[in-house]
Amino acid sequence: MITGKNYIGKELSAQGSTVFRTINPKLNLENAWECTEATVEEIGRATALAKDAFKMYRNTPSADRAHFLNTIADEIEALGDELIDTYCQESGLPKARAEGERGRTVFQLRAFAEMLGNDDWKGRSIDLAIPDRQPLPKVDLRKTMIPMGPIAVFGSSNFPFAYSTAGGDTASALAAGCPVIVKSHPMHAGTGELVASAIIAAAEKTNMPNGVFSNLNSKGIEVGVQLVQDAKIKAVGFTGSIRGGRALLDIAAGRPEPIPVFAEMGSLNPVIITQKALEKKGEHWADIYASTITMGTGQFCTNPGLILGIESDELDAFAKNLAEKMVKVDPTCMLHPNIKAAFSALKQEVSSQDGVSVLSAEITNVDTNYADQCLVTVSGSAFLSNPKLHNEVFGPFSVIVKCKNQAELLEIIEGLEGQLTGTIIAEEEDHSSLPIIVDELQQRVGRVIFNGVPTGVEVCPSMNHGGPYPASTDARFTAVGIQSIKRWIRPVTYQSFPKELLPNELKNG
Amino acid sequence: MITGKNYIGKELSAQGSTVFRTINPKLNLENAWECTEATVEEIGRATALAKDAFKMYRNTPSADRAHFLNTIADEIEALGDELIDTYCQESGLPKARAEGERGRTVFQLRAFAEMLGNDDWKGRSIDLAIPDRQPLPKVDLRKTMIPMGPIAVFGSSNFPFAYSTAGGDTASALAAGCPVIVKSHPMHAGTGELVASAIIAAAEKTNMPNGVFSNLNSKGIEVGVQLVQDAKIKAVGFTGSIRGGRALLDIAAGRPEPIPVFAEMGSLNPVIITQKALEKKGEHWADIYASTITMGTGQFCTNPGLILGIESDELDAFAKNLAEKMVKVDPTCMLHPNIKAAFSALKQEVSSQDGVSVLSAEITNVDTNYADQCLVTVSGSAFLSNPKLHNEVFGPFSVIVKCKNQAELLEIIEGLEGQLTGTIIAEEEDHSSLPIIVDELQQRVGRVIFNGVPTGVEVCPSMNHGGPYPASTDARFTAVGIQSIKRWIRPVTYQSFPKELLPNELKNG
Repeated sequence: MITGKNYIGKELSAQGSTVFRTINPKLNLENAWECTEATVEEIGRATALAKDAFKMYRNTPSADRAHFLNTIADEIEALGDELIDTYCQESGLPKARAEGERGRTVFQLRAFAEMLGNDDWKGRSIDLAIPDRQPLPKVDLRKTMIPMGPIAVFGSSNFPFAYSTAGGDTASALAAGCPVIVKSHPMHAGTGELVASAIIAAAEKTNMPNGVFSNLNSKGIEVGVQLVQDAKIKAVGFTGSIRGGRALLDIAAGRPEPIPVFAEMGSLNPVIITQKALEKKGEHWADIYASTITMGTGQFCTNPGLILGIESDELDAFAKNLAEKMVKVDPTCMLHPNIKAAFSALKQEVSSQDGVSVLSAEITNVDTNYADQCLVTVSGSAFLSNPKLHNEVFGPFSVIVKCKNQAELLEIIEGLEGQLTGTIIAEEEDHSSLPIIVDELQQRVGRVIFNGVPTGVEVCPSMNHGGPYPASTDARFTAVGIQSIKRWIRPVTYQSFPKELLPNELKNG
Repeated sequence: MITGKNYIGKELSAQGSTVFRTINPKLNLENAWECTEATVEEIGRATALAKDAFKMYRNTPSADRAHFLNTIADEIEALGDELIDTYCQESGLPKARAEGERGRTVFQLRAFAEMLGNDDWKGRSIDLAIPDRQPLPKVDLRKTMIPMGPIAVFGSSNFPFAYSTAGGDTASALAAGCPVIVKSHPMHAGTGELVASAIIAAAEKTNMPNGVFSNLNSKGIEVGVQLVQDAKIKAVGFTGSIRGGRALLDIAAGRPEPIPVFAEMGSLNPVIITQKALEKKGEHWADIYASTITMGTGQFCTNPGLILGIESDELDAFAKNLAEKMVKVDPTCMLHPNIKAAFSALKQEVSSQDGVSVLSAEITNVDTNYADQCLVTVSGSAFLSNPKLHNEVFGPFSVIVKCKNQAELLEIIEGLEGQLTGTIIAEEEDHSSLPIIVDELQQRVGRVIFNGVPTGVEVCPSMNHGGPYPASTDARFTAVGIQSIKRWIRPVTYQSFPKELLPNELKNG
């Protein structure tokens, strides 16, 4: 049952007077439950509990932490239809998506539990002593990883499960041995509370210390700002807009003790399509991309917002074809009236820039909060000279850029802001000319895809979900997969330590 | 021969009008060579060359990069006595130290060359496709590491070789495939130029692109500020003061595209000594620490500046004994008049705080720029309440803190700022009571040492040289050992790539 309260550790608490309701975007109506924003005192209590909990939690055996993570997964599943219904009511997303995303979320939790089955993730290193080395003896040195401390997690609007309350940031931080305080997303605070209740139930069932997890409601930015400024918080995970992520990065950098922020933010996810691919499979790729651009109402961080080709009749035909196919897709509901408003405004702004032609026919009679998908086209030179065309339009929207030639294409790739992904669509005959494109593209992105689509982020060790700024605030880390734990752990070296005082994983040479 | 000019790529350049001379601190006289600060135009030329060089250098085969690093080591050795003499004239450090540090520097370069013998350092990961997986097929995903781009390196005052021009930051960045621009340290600009000449000679001999390395002279802070603000610079390595490192961190964080800064900065390097150790081996440890605190005029980032014990007659006797032994060591020369002046001022400031007693007898007739070593003592409560006592006094100086009891000792450890190292001096009988101290201490440090001294930073895979802020700006990385390359590389994932377009290390499943 949704109470609208915060979880300050295991205690439900609602001392504040700022209340808000989430919105059902399909109905364009407020949901029934009223949520109470966390107060300054409640936030302080959550971080103090987290600091205390860290003393015990950092020393929990891996098997116990694995049990905790698996139990969270079980408890989330046990919430059943109430959770799925709440998700749908707060996001406008269909039930199948809710169920699929729940599956991904519990899979992530269980993947981290499995990772904890041994200590490989700590990347231990042992250098044995060489007492008779000349000119100086070598001491015994052994290195492992320890958790950094309480982590603040800011979930995304577009993945109420997989990148939110018990999503990848929380799962990886809890696996590392770090307590987590979630700043719940105001668009799906009810979903967040239910998931939080599963985490709290799991913590109690597995005897984790009170404060290992807290969930804070917020209507505006104040709760998040206070959380990141709190000296007890040692790192931040964020998924959302460039503006939001950058604001947190700036706050964290300005603290007396600066702390790392991993923010996964915006991305255009450029797609490069060759002339040969257009000639041979233009129809095929138009089908695929009409579906990809509109999937999930275009509300994926890896949605392809930029398609680059070299001007030709085939590129024109592909663009026309893609626009027609996109318009034929039934419009779907966006996550929130604010997101719909931002989509409309940004779409309008990009469409009205000099040199931009709108290819897709206008879609009329679109329901409130439903998105009218749109495809535009522009020349390479216009794209190069106008930074407004580089802005992500969050939703079912894409820009086709017609480059004059290969040199202009490369110039555009080289000048791109950092991206989560870059995709190359090509034919076998292109391979010999592609290395230079792959080389430049990989400098700007976290993942390169060949003859596919950027949407769909597999949870596995070889996944990298991140990229150069502003795709993320630190391209050296991934937000997805077990390697994402590296954001919350740091090395410690033990020199000349007696065996009995070493961490278990370092005890044997 | 020292020209006093900058290396803008391979070209010697001195277009500026700001000139300065280094100082021979033993003679307290300026050295003969005049150095010219890099101009705005020269800095811009260096970063433009680095950006161009990166296109070729990032794709250099590992064997060629290894050859480049080994050739740098050879060229440094080939500079012979001129280099050693210049080092001594610019640092006041003895010839044996210069030779030892040169050995460490060439060892580091060769260790990275050896690392490049295979691709293990890229930590490749391969997930093969599972086309028939339900409900969705799994795509082929392969992950490796790529270099981030041109790196700005700020060398330290206290290691003109090992943590400067061709030190660990430069060696690791060049190994990664990143061009390097060094902001030469003004206290040893001549040494820096000679080492730079070795790097340039090696780059030419091994056909590395012009711009893979530049060396910029600077008198004040402007050159460094411009360098870190330059959009072509993608990360920063720094060794030096908290004030300097933090200033660069703030500049980097404020850029339109924020970039990572790894700064290794200040540390008190606390040492905890148990009652049993004092009883059984007080004399032994007083000998060891009198030597360690004064070694290299106390100018090591791992110099023990803080000794914590529980009040007892034995602790008093140890303190008195240590002070007497320290005073008996012949004073040695500091690196620069400014460093001597800072040492005197900070020593005076800490010594004059409420509750601080100076234990060491005054050393008179100390030569100009030579340091008069000093040991002071203070109560745990005074230490807890006065942040001025937590400031690093760079030089042969240490504070003994007499804690009331174990609880106060733990409170002090828990409240410590981040440190590079923490040391525990104990006896076998103490082991059962140590886990709580180890647990708290490792939260505050990058390396814990048992019954030893913090000075001496072995170059090996298990070394961690870093720690929580302000010991470093990012505790997740080390400045020493081959793992330090992780500061300059980032993951890229290749999805569904044809084998011929994959990086070599990912070609085989």
